Formats: sequence, structure tokens, C-alpha cells
Amino acid sequence: MDFSLSPAQLELQQRTRRFIADEVIPMERDPRQDGHGPHEALRRDLVAKARVAGLLTPHASPDLGGLGLSHIDKAIVFEEAGYSPLGPVALNIHAPDEGNIHLMEVVATHAQKERWLRPLVQGHIRSCFCMTEPAPGSGSDPSMLQTTAVRDGDHYVINGLKWFITGATGASFAIIMARMEDGSATMFLSDMDREGIVIERQIDALDSCFTGGHGVVRFTNVRVPASDVLGQIGEGFRYAQVRLAPARLTHCMRWQGQARRAHDVATAYARSRHAFGKPLIEHEGVGFMLADNDMDLHSARLAIWHCAWVLDQGHKGRHESSLTKVLCSEAQWRVVDRAVQVLGASGVSDETIVARIFKDIRAFRVYDGPSEVHRWSMANRLSRGTGHG
Amino acid sequence: MDFSLSPAQLELQQRTRRFIADEVIPMERDPRQDGHGPHEALRRDLVAKARVAGLLTPHASPDLGGLGLSHIDKAIVFEEAGYSPLGPVALNIHAPDEGNIHLMEVVATHAQKERWLRPLVQGHIRSCFCMTEPAPGSGSDPSMLQTTAVRDGDHYVINGLKWFITGATGASFAIIMARMEDGSATMFLSDMDREGIVIERQIDALDSCFTGGHGVVRFTNVRVPASDVLGQIGEGFRYAQVRLAPARLTHCMRWQGQARRAHDVATAYARSRHAFGKPLIEHEGVGFMLADNDMDLHSARLAIWHCAWVLDQGHKGRHESSLTKVLCSEAQWRVVDRAVQVLGASGVSDETIVARIFKDIRAFRVYDGPSEVHRWSMANRLSRGTGHG
Amino acid sequence: MDFSLSPAQLELQQRTRRFIADEVIPMERDPRQDGHGPHEALRRDLVAKARVAGLLTPHASPDLGGLGLSHIDKAIVFEEAGYSPLGPVALNIHAPDEGNIHLMEVVATHAQKERWLRPLVQGHIRSCFCMTEPAPGSGSDPSMLQTTAVRDGDHYVINGLKWFITGATGASFAIIMARMEDGSATMFLSDMDREGIVIERQIDALDSCFTGGHGVVRFTNVRVPASDVLGQIGEGFRYAQVRLAPARLTHCMRWQGQARRAHDVATAYARSRHAFGKPLIEHEGVGFMLADNDMDLHSARLAIWHCAWVLDQGHKGRHESSLTKVLCSEAQWRVVDRAVQVLGASGVSDETIVARIFKDIRAFRVYDGPSEVHRWSMANRLSRGTGHG
Amino acid sequence: MDFSLSPAQLELQQRTRRFIADEVIPMERDPRQDGHGPHEALRRDLVAKARVAGLLTPHASPDLGGLGLSHIDKAIVFEEAGYSPLGPVALNIHAPDEGNIHLMEVVATHAQKERWLRPLVQGHIRSCFCMTEPAPGSGSDPSMLQTTAVRDGDHYVINGLKWFITGATGASFAIIMARMEDGSATMFLSDMDREGIVIERQIDALDSCFTGGHGVVRFTNVRVPASDVLGQIGEGFRYAQVRLAPARLTHCMRWQGQARRAHDVATAYARSRHAFGKPLIEHEGVGFMLADNDMDLHSARLAIWHCAWVLDQGHKGRHESSLTKVLCSEAQWRVVDRAVQVLGASGVSDETIVARIFKDIRAFRVYDGPSEVHRWSMANRLSRGTGHG
Repeated sequence: MDFSLSPAQLELQQRTRRFIADEVIPMERDPRQDGHGPHEALRRDLVAKARVAGLLTPHASPDLGGLGLSHIDKAIVFEEAGYSPLGPVALNIHAPDEGNIHLMEVVATHAQKERWLRPLVQGHIRSCFCMTEPAPGSGSDPSMLQTTAVRDGDHYVINGLKWFITGATGASFAIIMARMEDGSATMFLSDMDREGIVIERQIDALDSCFTGGHGVVRFTNVRVPASDVLGQIGEGFRYAQVRLAPARLTHCMRWQGQARRAHDVATAYARSRHAFGKPLIEHEGVGFMLADNDMDLHSARLAIWHCAWVLDQGHKGRHESSLTKVLCSEAQWRVVDRAVQVLGASGVSDETIVARIFKDIRAFRVYDGPSEVHRWSMANRLSRGTGHG
Repeated sequence: MDFSLSPAQLELQQRTRRFIADEVIPMERDPRQDGHGPHEALRRDLVAKARVAGLLTPHASPDLGGLGLSHIDKAIVFEEAGYSPLGPVALNIHAPDEGNIHLMEVVATHAQKERWLRPLVQGHIRSCFCMTEPAPGSGSDPSMLQTTAVRDGDHYVINGLKWFITGATGASFAIIMARMEDGSATMFLSDMDREGIVIERQIDALDSCFTGGHGVVRFTNVRVPASDVLGQIGEGFRYAQVRLAPARLTHCMRWQGQARRAHDVATAYARSRHAFGKPLIEHEGVGFMLADNDMDLHSARLAIWHCAWVLDQGHKGRHESSLTKVLCSEAQWRVVDRAVQVLGASGVSDETIVARIFKDIRAFRVYDGPSEVHRWSMANRLSRGTGHG
Repeated sequence: MDFSLSPAQLELQQRTRRFIADEVIPMERDPRQDGHGPHEALRRDLVAKARVAGLLTPHASPDLGGLGLSHIDKAIVFEEAGYSPLGPVALNIHAPDEGNIHLMEVVATHAQKERWLRPLVQGHIRSCFCMTEPAPGSGSDPSMLQTTAVRDGDHYVINGLKWFITGATGASFAIIMARMEDGSATMFLSDMDREGIVIERQIDALDSCFTGGHGVVRFTNVRVPASDVLGQIGEGFRYAQVRLAPARLTHCMRWQGQARRAHDVATAYARSRHAFGKPLIEHEGVGFMLADNDMDLHSARLAIWHCAWVLDQGHKGRHESSLTKVLCSEAQWRVVDRAVQVLGASGVSDETIVARIFKDIRAFRVYDGPSEVHRWSMANRLSRGTGHG
Repeated sequence: MDFSLSPAQLELQQRTRRFIADEVIPMERDPRQDGHGPHEALRRDLVAKARVAGLLTPHASPDLGGLGLSHIDKAIVFEEAGYSPLGPVALNIHAPDEGNIHLMEVVATHAQKERWLRPLVQGHIRSCFCMTEPAPGSGSDPSMLQTTAVRDGDHYVINGLKWFITGATGASFAIIMARMEDGSATMFLSDMDREGIVIERQIDALDSCFTGGHGVVRFTNVRVPASDVLGQIGEGFRYAQVRLAPARLTHCMRWQGQARRAHDVATAYARSRHAFGKPLIEHEGVGFMLADNDMDLHSARLAIWHCAWVLDQGHKGRHESSLTKVLCSEAQWRVVDRAVQVLGASGVSDETIVARIFKDIRAFRVYDGPSEVHRWSMANRLSRGTGHG
């Protein structure tokens, strides 16, 4: 058992921390962003900075231009990047690209990698992941998938409606999940400018940290050549799991940074703002909230590190990643909510970054499986005696 | 002990409920509103509808044009009005006007009432209440008041900076709290277009339900005639309490409506949306959240009714209004947060009204004394043996 | 709407309060009690005192010797009685007798009343209610009832095993719930000394407030004459509801007294005990716990009063009594747990009454339907649109 | 970063686990125990078993007969031992002996070690730690120490009253904390049969897991030779910290085992007990509680491991041990409370071991500094910028 970081990890941690402090935080009030997220122009500027700093797409394999980070390495770097809402954009480690890169490294063909993955890793283009559907389609329950793919010669014809497709607007290509005639699911790759793909509208979401926001995407008789199937026909649900377990964990890592930021802002405020004769932090009612934050951040970080280590051992870590996702999304949420409360009027307004984090992070308890679905799958494993504890 | 509503109360409840359903909810997506709240034009349209329905400014005394509602009456009507974020705007019962009307009815002179209160009650103008100051001024701790008023002949000269002044933009007049040379505080009335009053900027707050948003207002050598003192010189802190105890309670009432709305939207969704083979509401994980909402709404409503009854008995109800404010702001918050969770993707976006309520209600745990200040004053009363329990 | 108590209610409240303070609390350390509860001799002494004070079995109808209290009246008197763990014993209002009296008043024959109910109301004898069974029998799910009653001439022959039968040891008679051949259930009355009834053992429960403790009772070919059927054949499940809704509520009332007691003891301690330079209560960390107690006690009391009023209106109040049971059992639990924490070492030991209350009250979240079953039935009503909120 | 256990740690973990399962759990209903804890005769039998298994006093240094465990090693072994309430008694790792052994290893003289420490490590005798005093003495606030030691020739004369002295009854010797004339504190060693030491009474505590229970000990003109001072004169407060930081952590380790046991019992029950048509665990309301337990156990274990690692690095870990104590005591408490709830009637009675664990563990939120004191010291460090997070 060893909780120490290697010299290389420490160097990466410090470098990322300085990069965020020096290059990214000063751009947080850049006007090229709105309720749907940072604009493409801002994203490109940020990515350029990360490229110079040697921090671009660090999780990708070295032959694609990344740093080939282990899961533990990612835990360290992604938390630092998450310290600013713009950090993951700069490092090109944001959802959904981060998870798409991971999945494509595992299952894409060489040709697919050259065509789509390499420019994605280089930060030149963006992608989206078209899985979630509005009612009565597939939300928390993937078996309710309604979008269909039907073979037609050497093509597949895709029809369906997807929503909450993060980054759809401005994405160059999509991974599309569709149901086959036999009930199985398959993933397809397609450029977004293909005929039949229409972004019907942008969703006004609470969060505004994802470039391209969240779109509603309609697929009408979209013809995808068989060579653009991602991986094997009928393996869509399995690949979704390949993508999701680590993707869940990288969410935890990035939000850990955001939560820590909110806590730091609140702590600094509580040290300097006085009321009733002393600094806020010397009031137990405030100090206890910050102590609780400290505990929640500690718990979340340890759970992330542990789960990352499990994945690094080659395990699937499905129980650990479910557990860590619930634990982090709820602990980090409490941290941010307490930070708002400590800040008072400054917390419920854009006077500090915290209100933005507050709006951004709320959806984390919903995305990638709401807490209730993960608790249910944890309980199922306990029921079968296959969990831990 | 009797929990029944009188026939008149029932009629008023039903009438308000219908008005909100028929006239106000259909306007919730009216484009004349933004992140700073409904525009004045929308407000005027809504007020006109309430005037027709005989529901305008119902808490004001009949000789001013109101219905002279008791506190219990208000509990019933304001909850119904709060069922839409636009309801309190329509009925002219929103902060800060509602509390200003109450205070001015108690302490303003006849001339002051004719000049400012009557048009306010009639919905023709709006007002603001300039008390809160940025650090190091008066926030939760009123004794830190920095704005000064100095006598100069038959005028007072006011200097200071106020922030989070709800409704300042577009307000016709203000009540201004300032410190006297002897350390006491006084309230002043002033038209907002008087020389030396400048709204420096709008604050970007999480909420967007108040017409005029929240402004930062600077007072530079503002000369107010002695005849425009509100009430007595040196009584500012006492009047603040006169205003605050019932104002806190009317906040609870309006937010009760909002929380109920969120719960109703979530319940309807949970009945119709299916996952894993049955409607969401039949999953205990979802059903229990809605049952918890039901309990929280019930607790909050009973506390409001009880506190209203205490005030109607002529008591100041300072302990009860503190208790009720904390209890409601936290219970209603939990209700709305659970509603978001039940709704999932639809909850973290503007697909339903709930995300808007979520953003609007967060500040309630901060406004009018954060939970921590009220818990502290409750503990002080318990310490002296003057609370209840 | 009116929260005031009538003069008669106030008098009864004050009289009960004085009786508990003067007559019952001084006996709390009486050695005639152990881990299974007060001994019969102590019970008789306490009952004698209540008889003198005119407070014995006050909920029974006047013709049986009670005061014919309404549900609201009971809310007031039972809370006062519950201020001591021995108070409900003294007033003869403890489970299961209190609920048995209520049920028998509604459905017993005249002969049954004269034989069993009258001496029960007079405090001369005790009774028990034999419904709950160990696995795989009827616990939270009444449909799993395993005990059988088979007609044999003008008798019924009962076989089965019941457990957690409160007050069985020392009870003169029992109400026994058994399954009929057609799957319906029937309640039977029987003296406890009848052949075939054996108390196999006492259960060591956390609580020690019930005379007779909790027993495991075996019924082996117990022959009960048809004239001792309680009410109608096949109506057992319905009667269980008749008994349970108000019985749940009287539990809330009694525990409200216990929780208030724990809070009062903790508050007195926090006022007098110093640490770190001031009384504990002036530390926000302690004061906030007591403020939270104050809120929880207030919420629980209002919910009790409201539900009592609903029952007094003649409604069944099934939703309200479920809601109130969950709300009270959880709120009162929090109050007692916080009281333990405030008291520190004195809280986790018998230095004060609070540790005893702590052990006694834990089961309330389980008895009469655990929180989970009530949340589920509340959710079912919300699902059908028949709850409130 | 590495979460794996070494082969030696795994062997020790498995051996301890088997020992507890095979030798200790079968004795849990041994009649030689009561509300004040296991009797000395039972303790000796258990210790003898651990001696045979090579698991006695494993934290002591090898030259005293222990295994010289690191803090991480202890985390692993003590959790396993804690799986039974009798496990720590058997391994001789229970409070207060465990902490006394640690302290004496660091500061006792050779003669003191031979006289008191060696037989203590060998399990032949027990000790107690006399620090806590009743009001108005030293409880949470050590500066309120009232017991005095006055120099008289080559002796010190001790006077004072201590309470909640765990294991006092039956202890062979005591470490006594007393105030010097200059306000500093000193620790003294004394046999318990010395003149002037009287155990006035046993305290009836909620817990019953400590041999000897908790006593009230009066010191009246107790004469202790100067050679029996433990360590240096005036260093008492510092030694208390030397003892407390690791002692707090070993508490966390042992209770982790107890909480895991409660969870396992509840999980097994929830798998086998049916209600409403399926096993309890398949009801989300139950399954979610068990999933929450899984998360809480995981968080607590990771925090323990991390803090143990910090101590193993040679750091004092005061922030980490405070944080871990609060986090564990509250998380483990929730686990046990949920286990009770899942078990229902079986949880609130001695039908399973869980009710005993429930009573035993409550005090952990109070002992060794209540949560409030640790939150306060954490907040103080955050205030000075010396915490982490």
C-alpha cells in the first residue's frame, strides 16, 4: 500500500496546476462563451495553449500524440485540469471526446483512426456520442433504444432521434448507437455533415461547460457504409460499457477539480469576510461546512484513486466505477452547495466562479447513469454476493 | 385547533389557482424575460390580468385597493401565486414590493403613502429596498452598516454603496437604510431618479424571477428632505425587523408554490416515463423521493400556517419566523433538488420549468438571513430559555 | 385555521404535565424494572397514581371510565405523558393496550367488552396483540400471515407462531390474528392461560419501556369458541387497519414527549456545561444541533396535530397517518440522537434518561410498518394521484 | 500509488479472519459477559486462543512479544479483529490497553516497561487511562483538567476525580493525568491497588464491549514516587497527543470491522427474507441502503488506509487523524443504523449481533473527541491554511 506520487506524476501535477493558474483561469471571463458553452474560437485558443505546454490530450497513446497516461496518472492530471471549467476544454479531455478517444483506441480500425481519431487527438476537430434518446427511447435504460439501423447492401440506413448529445453542434463526426433488426445494438461512425443528419435544436441546460452544448439530433435515412461500423456488428451495448466505466471515472476526476476550486474560493472568502465580530471561518457554523468539504473532497479523491488503480490492474471495475461515480457526484455536489452557502450573496451570483460550477455540476448526478441506477446495480451485485465492502 | 379553511379562503384559493393556471402559466415562455428577470412590459401585462381577476396586491389594506389579507389568508393565496415564477409578479406580491408595502402601511405618513404607496399598491410603479452592502459592509450582520446619512439643514445627505438591491433597475423609489452619526440607523424614502443615485451594474444572479433583477446602487451626496424620512429617526434597525419577520414568511409562502410545482411536474413525469419495465414512480428509488417531497411540502406548509397564525394573534413571532424560514428554505430546496433528480435530463435543462425553479430557489437559503444566522438566533433563544420546542 | 388549545385542553395539558413531573419522573429509577420493561408491581403503582389524578385511560369512552378524548386531545395529553418513559404506563395509554382498547370499542360485542375491555380500561389487566410472525411469516407484509384458524364445530382451532408480541408476558388476554381457509384473516380473543398458548421466550429488545417486554408466543391447537371472534369472520385485515392508523399516530404522540424530554435534558446541559471558555450552547456546533431539534420537534408536533384533526373529521387518514409516522419517527430519532451527542459521555450512559430514550425510540422507525413500507404506500398513492402535497 | 497488500499482509489478514470466524464468533453468546463487558475469565480464555494463533498483541514491538505491525498492517488486522465485538479483547488490541502500550513503548523507562508493559503485552494484566473528568473538569477540553499532583519530597500527591475510565475495574495499573502547580500536566503510573485509589462506581454505558466497563475513579492523597512519572514532568498534554492520534485511528480500524459485520448480517438477511413477493434486497428501498453501506464502508476504509500510510511515513497526521475519526465514526454509524433498519424486528433485538454493535458503536462519535471538536480543529487548520483538501 502506497499513496505517494512518483516524481513524474508530481511533475505533471505541478505543471498542469501552473498551466491552469497561469493560462486558463485568466480566460474564464472571456466573452466567447455563453449558456451553451465555450465557442469554438475560444476552444481553439485554449487547445493551442495546452499544445505549447505539452499537455494536450494527455490520455491518448503516445503514437497518436498523447502522453499515454495510466488511470492513476489521469486522476492526477484531470483533477488539476478541472480546477477551471475551461481546463478540460484546453487539455482536450472533456466529454464526450475523452471517452470517444478511449473507445476508438480500443476498437476502431486503422483507417478509422487515421481519418477521425488522429485529428481528434490533435485537437483539430471535435466529436459527439449519439446514444441517449428522449422518451420513450433510451435514457437510463439502454434496452429501450429506438434508433434503428437496417442493412441495405453494403450500407446501413439509420433512423432515429437522439437528444442531450453533448458537443453535437460543431462536431465533425459522431458515434451513433442504433438497434439492429435482431435486437442487438451497433455503433456507427459518421461525419456530421452527412445527408440526413440534422441538429434540430440546442437544449438549454443548466451547465455551460461543454463546447457545442447539448443538441437534439435527428437521423433520417442516414446511409453509413459498412466500413464505418465501429468494431463489430451487434457489440454496441458491450462497447458502451467499455466506454462508460472509465468515462464515468474521468468525470469524477474533472469534477473533483471543480469542487476543490469552489471550496478554495469559499475558504478564502470565509477567511477574509467578517461578520458578528470575527472572520466567517471562525464561526463554527461556517467552519464546520468547510471541514465537511474537506472530508468530502478527501473521500472522493481516495475513491477515484482506488478505482483508477483497479482499472490499471486490468480489471473492469464495474462495481468500483459505479460506486465511485455515485460517491463523487454526491460528495462533490455537497461541497459546491456548501461553498455557495458560505459565500452567501457572492455564491448565488456570478461574483465568483462558484455559481457557474454550481450550475455545471448539478447534472453530474444524472449523466452517465443517475445515482439511482448505479445504486440499483450496486445492490444487484450485493444481492449476488459479487460486490465488495 | 382547526385546520379547515373558511369558505372565503377556499374561494380565494381556488380563484388564485385558476388564475395562475389559465392566465399566468401560459406566459411562462414569454420572450420578454431574461437572466435578470421579467421585463417591465411583461410585468405590466401580468399585473393587468391580476387587476381584472381582482387579485392585485391582495395583502394591502382595502382603503389602498387591496383585500386586507390576514397572514393565514396570505399563506393560502401566496402559495397559489407562487405556483408559477410569474405569479407573484402578476399579483404584485413579490419581494421587495410586498415587504415595502407592509412596512409603509405601518410607518409611512399620509403624504408618503399618497405619493409612493398608493401607486405601488396599484401596480403602476415598483420600489426597492436598499439595505444590503458588499464587504466590508452590512450583509448578514446589520451592525456593519457603512452607508451614512448626515444632517444638513432640513436635508440628510446620504453616501454609500448597496448591492443585491432587488428590483433597483426600473424602480421608481427606494427605501434606503443609512447609519446616523450616533450609530443608530434610519430609513429614508427617495425617488430613484434623484441626483447622486446611480445603478452601477446588474448582478448576474442564479435567479431570474424578480423584475429588475439585482443591482449595485451607489449613493453619492444624495440629498433627501427631512420630510422623506420613513418613520422615526434612529428606528431603522427596529423597522427592518418589522419588515423582515413577515417578509421572511411571505418568501416561504411563495416558494412553497414553486416547490409544489416542481414536485407536481416530477410526479407527472414519473408516472408517464418508463424505464426497466415499469413507470419510474413504481421504482422505489423514485417513489421514495416523491414521498419525501410530500413530507417536506407538508412540513413546510404546516410551519407556514402556524407562523402565520402566530402573527395573526398579534405576536412578533421572531422565533417562529426564523424557524419557519430555515425549515421552509431547506425543505423546499430538497423538494426541488429531488424533482430535478427524478426528471433526469429533463430536470437539468429547460425542457420543464423545474430547472428554472432550481436556479431561482437556491438563493432562498441565503436571502433574508442565511440558515446559519437564523440557527444562531434560534440557539440564542434556547440559550436564554425563550424559544419553544 | 386555528392553532389554539381550548381551556379544557390547556387544563388537561397542564394537569398531565404536573402529574408526570411530580409523580412519574421521581419513579424513573425505581428498581422494579429491567431490560424487559417495568414490572407489573411498578405498573400497578403508577396506574394507581393516575387513577387518583383522574388521568387513567383517558382515551377510552366515558361509559368505560375514560375521558373520551378526541384525537387532538390525545395529541396533547399523550405528548405530556410521553415526557417520561413511565408516563404511558401510568396513564394506561401504552401499546398495545391503547390500540386494543380503541379497536375493541369499535368492534367488540357487549359481552366481550364487559369481560375484557372494562378491566383493561380500569388498568386491572393487560392485553397483547398477536399479529407479527417471524420469517417466513407476516412481518411488514401482512399477506404472509402463516398462523391458521380452522373451524371445528362451534370452535376455531388456532396454530401458529407469533413474535415480538409486546406485553405478552403478564397479559390476561390476547387478540390473535389468523388466516382462514379461504385466505382471509380473522381476529380472535382469548385468555392467555388457555391450553395451547405458550410464551416460549422473551426477546431481548433495545427498548425497555413496555411492561411485559416482547415475547415469542406459540399457539398449538388452541380452541377458541366462535363467540370469541372479534368482530366479523374474514375482516381481520380491515380491522388491523382500523387499529393501526390511530395506533401509529398515538405512537407519534408518546414519542414526541420522549424526544422533547431528551432535547430539554440536552439543552439544560448545554447551558450549564462549559468547554473552551463558554457554555456549550454558545458554541454554534452545539447550538445549531439544538436549533435543529427545535425545528424537528415543531415539524413533528404540527404533523401530529394535523393528522389528529383529519381523524377527528371522520376521515381514515391513511395517507396522513403514514406520512406522520415516517416524519415523526425520523424527526424524533434525529432529536434524540443529537441530544446524545450534545450530552457526550453523559449521553452514552445512564447518567441521564437520554440513553434510555435513545434505546427505546430506535424501534419506532421499525414498529407499525418500517419507514420503507410507509414511503412505498405513500408513493403508491402519489402514483394513483390520491396523495396530497 | 498502490493499493495492493503484500503477501505477508494478506496472510495476516486471512489468518485473523479465520481466527475470528473459528474461535471468537462462536463465543459471542458466552454467558461470562454483561452490560459492563466481558468478564476477566472470558477475556483470559480469548487471549489464550489468540496466543496460540500467534495473534496476541500484534502491534507491540517484537522484543516485547508482538509482531511490530506498521500502521497499515494494523489497519488490516484490526479491521478483521473488529469483526467480532470480542475480537479486540482476544487480540489484546482494545482500548485503552492498545493506546497505553503504544505510549509506554515510546516514553516509559526500561524499569517501567519490565514492571508494567511486558505483562500487559503478554495479556496477563490490564491497564486504564485516567484522563477524563466529570463536569466541571476535563472532558472535550483538556485545559479544564482539575486533578492535581503536588510534589512532596520524592513523591507526588494526587487528588482528583476521573470518570468514564474504561477498564478501570480489574485493571492492574493506571496512567493518571494530573495538573501541576505551574498549570502544565504530567502522566503518572500507579498500581490500582495503591492506597487512596477507589473505584466509586461503574457507569452504565450504552456499550458493553470493554472488559471492566467504565468506572468512576477517585484519587485521594495518592502518593506516587517520582520514579513512576511516565516520561517527563509537564509533558502530559503532549503525550496525550502522542497517544491520541494513533489511538483514534485504531478505533476507526476496529469499528470498521464491526460495521462490516453489521452490514454482512443485514445483507444476508435481505437476501433470504421475503416480503411483498421478493427478497428484501430486491426492493430498491432496501437495496439502496445496502449500496449506501457499501459506499460508506469503502470511504471509511480508504481514509483509514491513507491516514495509516501518513503515520507510517513518520508524520504526526493530526489533520488526517481528526478527519478520519469524524469520517469513520459517522460513516460506520450510518452503516450500523441502516443494518438495524434492514433487519427490522431482528435488528432492534438481540436476535442478531447487530443490536449489540449498534449500542456499542454510538459512543464512538463521542469518545476521543466528539465530532464537533474535531470539525472545529479541522476548521482551525483550514483557517490557517494548514489543512489539505
